[in-house]
Amino acid sequence: MDDELYMRQALALACLAEGDTSPNPMVGAVIVSADGEVVGEGYHHKAGQPHAEINALKEAKKLARGGTIYVTLEPCSHFGRTGPCCEAIIAAGLKRVVAAVEDPNPKVAGNGFKRLRDAGIEVIVGVCAEEARLLNEKFFHWIVTGRPFVSMKYAMTLDGKIATRTGDSKWITGEDARAYGHYLRKAHDCILVGKNTVLADDPELTTRLVEGRNPLRIVLDSNCEIPMTAKIFDGEAETLLVTGTCLPGAKQAKAEALQALPKVEVLQLPAVNGKLPVALLLQELAGRNLTSILVEGGSTVHGDFLEAGLVDRIYAFIAPKLIGGKEALTPVGGKGFALMEDCYVLKETETLPLGADILLTGRVERNKC
Amino acid sequence: MDDELYMRQALALACLAEGDTSPNPMVGAVIVSADGEVVGEGYHHKAGQPHAEINALKEAKKLARGGTIYVTLEPCSHFGRTGPCCEAIIAAGLKRVVAAVEDPNPKVAGNGFKRLRDAGIEVIVGVCAEEARLLNEKFFHWIVTGRPFVSMKYAMTLDGKIATRTGDSKWITGEDARAYGHYLRKAHDCILVGKNTVLADDPELTTRLVEGRNPLRIVLDSNCEIPMTAKIFDGEAETLLVTGTCLPGAKQAKAEALQALPKVEVLQLPAVNGKLPVALLLQELAGRNLTSILVEGGSTVHGDFLEAGLVDRIYAFIAPKLIGGKEALTPVGGKGFALMEDCYVLKETETLPLGADILLTGRVERNKC
Repeated sequence: MDDELYMRQALALACLAEGDTSPNPMVGAVIVSADGEVVGEGYHHKAGQPHAEINALKEAKKLARGGTIYVTLEPCSHFGRTGPCCEAIIAAGLKRVVAAVEDPNPKVAGNGFKRLRDAGIEVIVGVCAEEARLLNEKFFHWIVTGRPFVSMKYAMTLDGKIATRTGDSKWITGEDARAYGHYLRKAHDCILVGKNTVLADDPELTTRLVEGRNPLRIVLDSNCEIPMTAKIFDGEAETLLVTGTCLPGAKQAKAEALQALPKVEVLQLPAVNGKLPVALLLQELAGRNLTSILVEGGSTVHGDFLEAGLVDRIYAFIAPKLIGGKEALTPVGGKGFALMEDCYVLKETETLPLGADILLTGRVERNKC
Repeated sequence: MDDELYMRQALALACLAEGDTSPNPMVGAVIVSADGEVVGEGYHHKAGQPHAEINALKEAKKLARGGTIYVTLEPCSHFGRTGPCCEAIIAAGLKRVVAAVEDPNPKVAGNGFKRLRDAGIEVIVGVCAEEARLLNEKFFHWIVTGRPFVSMKYAMTLDGKIATRTGDSKWITGEDARAYGHYLRKAHDCILVGKNTVLADDPELTTRLVEGRNPLRIVLDSNCEIPMTAKIFDGEAETLLVTGTCLPGAKQAKAEALQALPKVEVLQLPAVNGKLPVALLLQELAGRNLTSILVEGGSTVHGDFLEAGLVDRIYAFIAPKLIGGKEALTPVGGKGFALMEDCYVLKETETLPLGADILLTGRVERNKC
């Protein structure tokens, strides 16, 4: 019971750095002294800065001796940008380590627990494991698969539209849902949209409604059609424009002019029938230590990612509104599946009321039935 | 506090006859004796049978004297198919009447309360009024507007589709949601679908998954295209086929052959550009004392009703599944609105988890913003 309580405290600490630790995971730690008092709290603030355990030990000082440390992820045993936490835990004289989950990072992967046990420390693993895995699902996915975690986000009416037949989408959801959308942006390393979304809405793709960093803005625009005046080229945040290779002369010149803008990079990938290779793009992003992408549409881009089997989580904001229209766009376009049994299903779904709207989220799996 | 408690009991009693009382409202009654004991319970079972108050008085007998009757709707003061409840309440010597709401039926509309007060009985109105209005929203709407209450029902994927691009819709939602759909059928006087739904799914449109009556099955088929072998012509329940007037000879002959089938009626209304006049149909149904319709699709019929401003409530079943497809049908087709601000909004929304699916329901209002 107490173990769970302290672990939840450690998880809450970890969350304080949501969006700031990438490409590292979020980690929180709580130290409880031999006589049962919380004597240290810490969390990992940012890659390159001390790990959670070190921050908690700094606060606990000598009171750590003989106590227990609760940590949301296996302590590291290797020298990264900071020294290994295991050695610090051993040196501090802690008697017991309670961890939520093993670190799937192949550089750790049980070595931390082994080192601690070899030093005579009692190690307990698995307290609040599910919450800890969910907390770092993006990092775990990236470190295990070598592919960024892809979240697909959209706001739709209750009759399944992301815009009216004329393309109007301001606004489908209310302020609470839109603020939550900005929080989601902050929690990802990149935000990705297609050219149609830029042409229709000219979005800023920043996190202006919440505190926190601006993720990398990525736009898929195979034929380099977006005007140079689009807000995504405003220099307010980094932007990666992905176009096709072998552009016609004028378009190539435009691509080069865009590349010359501050905070703008143009990446040229081979397009097939106007479709950019999203799997190849994810590979490129993973190589840059970008662990997660929020794909914000539109309909065609969502179709591309879903059909490529590259969507890991859905965030669907549903507004209690009806606009009708056979021609109005839906959240996921493209060709689509022929049979219901081929569908993707959401697992571990959760719903959250946001003002008059509802957020439905879940992990995406291919249906087996 | 006690008043609310007993009124909730009366509301629960009223619900026992869900789907059975039309064109009468559902009503429940509880009698509490002078010394605070429940001595009578009753509800209205079916039009033509005794009202709730009479059933409760029958049970309470002499114990009613000096007590209180809780009733979910104003007691009637007029002679209908049964004697007026007010006279029975007065005769039984009850001291106090607690009612949830006034009966909007112009034959009652406060006359019941007046009669009781004139007889020296204390009358309290408004306990659990909102629940009582919701309980009989279909009846109240019909009695006040002279138009049946229209509920629109659909099951869609989380990406806003009611079928795959090939028309496959078996199954979008799971068993719990489908059973709830049958409960909704039972709670309405009619079920209405368009010809495309019959051609695609050949539905039975019965309440086979729950206990209760089968409502009238209505199919809109302006050109009389549905095959005579369709399940809706199976004689298992009453069916009203609505076609256009002035059908070509062979079609008119088919309409007449269908009319000759058991439990099948053909109603011919003037169609304009293949669209049957839904407002005129509602008028016809209201005249037959049909107080409510469950419109079950498809996309085009939903568009017709929404654009005509004739939808009073939505029942949207949302399955946590994704199938994609620009061409896949959405819950509401038709032309649709151009601007978000023109949308219809749902008020008093409620959500209900049904297995892995979610039901979202609410009253429909035109957006004012």
